[in-house]
Amino acid sequence: MLVKEKLSNWLINERDKAVEFLQKTVQEASTTGNETGVQHLIAQKLKEIGLEVDMWYPIGEELAKHPNFCASRTDFSTSPNVVGIWRGTGNGRSLVLNGHIDVVPEGDLTQWEEHPYSGKVIDGKLYGRGSTDMKGGNLSLLLAIQALKETGAELKGDLFFHSVIEEESGGAGTLAAVLRGYKADAAIIPEPTNMKIFPAQQGSMWFRLTIKGKAAHGGTRYEGVSAIEKAGVVLSAIKDLETVRNKRITDPLYKDIPIPVPINVGKIGGGNWPSSVPDSVELEGRIGVAPNETLEDVKAELESYLSNLSDSWLKDNPITIEWFGAQWLPGLIETDHPLMNILRKNFEGVTGNEPIIEASPWGTDGGLLSQVGDTPSIVFGPGVTAVAHYPNEYIEITKIIETAEIIALTIYDWCGGENL
Amino acid sequence: MLVKEKLSNWLINERDKAVEFLQKTVQEASTTGNETGVQHLIAQKLKEIGLEVDMWYPIGEELAKHPNFCASRTDFSTSPNVVGIWRGTGNGRSLVLNGHIDVVPEGDLTQWEEHPYSGKVIDGKLYGRGSTDMKGGNLSLLLAIQALKETGAELKGDLFFHSVIEEESGGAGTLAAVLRGYKADAAIIPEPTNMKIFPAQQGSMWFRLTIKGKAAHGGTRYEGVSAIEKAGVVLSAIKDLETVRNKRITDPLYKDIPIPVPINVGKIGGGNWPSSVPDSVELEGRIGVAPNETLEDVKAELESYLSNLSDSWLKDNPITIEWFGAQWLPGLIETDHPLMNILRKNFEGVTGNEPIIEASPWGTDGGLLSQVGDTPSIVFGPGVTAVAHYPNEYIEITKIIETAEIIALTIYDWCGGENL
Repeated sequence: MLVKEKLSNWLINERDKAVEFLQKTVQEASTTGNETGVQHLIAQKLKEIGLEVDMWYPIGEELAKHPNFCASRTDFSTSPNVVGIWRGTGNGRSLVLNGHIDVVPEGDLTQWEEHPYSGKVIDGKLYGRGSTDMKGGNLSLLLAIQALKETGAELKGDLFFHSVIEEESGGAGTLAAVLRGYKADAAIIPEPTNMKIFPAQQGSMWFRLTIKGKAAHGGTRYEGVSAIEKAGVVLSAIKDLETVRNKRITDPLYKDIPIPVPINVGKIGGGNWPSSVPDSVELEGRIGVAPNETLEDVKAELESYLSNLSDSWLKDNPITIEWFGAQWLPGLIETDHPLMNILRKNFEGVTGNEPIIEASPWGTDGGLLSQVGDTPSIVFGPGVTAVAHYPNEYIEITKIIETAEIIALTIYDWCGGENL
Repeated sequence: MLVKEKLSNWLINERDKAVEFLQKTVQEASTTGNETGVQHLIAQKLKEIGLEVDMWYPIGEELAKHPNFCASRTDFSTSPNVVGIWRGTGNGRSLVLNGHIDVVPEGDLTQWEEHPYSGKVIDGKLYGRGSTDMKGGNLSLLLAIQALKETGAELKGDLFFHSVIEEESGGAGTLAAVLRGYKADAAIIPEPTNMKIFPAQQGSMWFRLTIKGKAAHGGTRYEGVSAIEKAGVVLSAIKDLETVRNKRITDPLYKDIPIPVPINVGKIGGGNWPSSVPDSVELEGRIGVAPNETLEDVKAELESYLSNLSDSWLKDNPITIEWFGAQWLPGLIETDHPLMNILRKNFEGVTGNEPIIEASPWGTDGGLLSQVGDTPSIVFGPGVTAVAHYPNEYIEITKIIETAEIIALTIYDWCGGENL
């Protein structure tokens, strides 16, 4: 029997148990600070599969010294990281399989048709917060490893499975894993790409702009300067800058993406009285970072652009710029990297189709893995972004199994598999 | 001795006592719900002067039935109205002198150089919240009445002095006074006009607009519709409507006013996450109402304008419009009204200058007096708007005395004064 068939058969037989395990992990509401329960499940599973397990609580104070540390907390005492280790027999390429275990909050309960942590299966879809982002993808990784183990495979290279905290808040979990030494020759991250392959991953940063005006009574508004009007000038400048930045991007990976690295203004607030001219407006937004850019370059470009507007009021009353909250480094692996070729081939073998190869519209822990951990990363997973972070999040079970098969074959090829 | 001289001499002699009384009234921090103390002072003063006094607590539930009731409360149990009545000897024109006793909150204490309710006098200016808006003007009225009484004047027409609550919140105090029967052939309101004469008073209303967008991840912002961007479309439409509305105004009273009836957007808020496309933005603003307009006309015009924008998203996702908070009716008295002529003449006699006659950029209780109380009103008083509602509010004492003299002479002329 072919390797593919062996793995495929094993996965088909495992499907029901796999769904049950995914239900259990979804039912653990692992929002920030609440990851202990689910990480114990994962650690237990890894042991059952036969991997060595390292579970530890990152020391925030230590981690915070790293220039790429970005989190809203330093207390990780209820948030362990887990790494499963499959030591290779030697002389093979090593691989990191990385998935985050934290989920974003469920939001408005009334918008959910089922309980957000139900894990209920309806028509082949498993529902719940975190199902797509990204416990379904994590399950693909676990199934891939288990399939190889249980069919008797051996690997030459080392395999590291990261189950990390904090991806949704800036990547401190992956940073901790990398600093603990869990790096490799390359990595796969099964974020919900709808099974597209993303060799390039957009980075991003958050900014806050404060725009000044001059207060006056609304009945004599011509005596003041409206910060809301001036915010309009700034918003229009931001769109212009977005155009300038995106014109520079010629990488064919972006050819089907309307705006490769968008600048999004997500929040506005200002003024405090209907009949007063508002003297201050605050904007909060996210700027996308292209794979070939550094965060510093992008900061400098936005700052310089906004300090050189032609508006004379804004010249005299400069916009304040703060960089706050989360940051994600961009990531890039060459499209002809050997791992890309192996993944592409196995995708075609399992699905019968050519994969779509694109750039990701969002940041992942791939930036930290590449830039801090020297581990170039590919993002490829089941699930669709459209339902991530939204009510009624779900994942198609078939896609999890299909992804598991592709990844199992890819591990076998990359790490130098034997015995199947 | 001429009438003018008698009154002028009396006022000069009274100056120190007058300042002391103003200090006392400013020291009573008569923000909404805290008017009892100062109203007792006023009532006492009116009795000493020799007027009949009516002090009562408006019944909110009753008042609220009136279509022009506009307040954020119906409990006035700590907010009495006071009216002082000087019954005329008969066959004369009656007059209302109206001033509000409520003050707006002092705001940020750190921005005040003196305690906001100090009443401290420095270089001929008395400082404190409410000094200009409008306890200084009220003092001009009291001094005018007292000067006439103490110099022995008699009046043919009735004189009513309104010391009303709630002007800052929509006029329920004046509404209560008018409904209790305290109306007259005309009125003077000494709001801070910097001694300009305002026969026309702008009305105003508050509105709240809710603009919808469509949420999406900031990294794929082209999949959503930014409510902030759509708010920009709405803001620009509001400016266009302001232009259209102001082009219609040809009254020469407005010739020196850059925007006779402005539309001010004073508050904006929307979105809740830097890297999400915002799906909702709220705007709050104030629309000025010209003296010849009704509130209903203006509401209908804004609503119709905003429901006919060419933007296709806004066509499919109509803007929600709410009318909330305070409303002020506009007011208008003919510029050649006999009271205008008398006031103008006395202004010239006392100051030696021609008065500036203009339209007010804000609403006063004059709208309610004119439209509900059938009492056409002139707004004319000491103090400058620029310091009203601001830290370090003050009033020039000399202006109070000068205004008192002009008003005393005007009462004497209008109500048919005798014996001086």
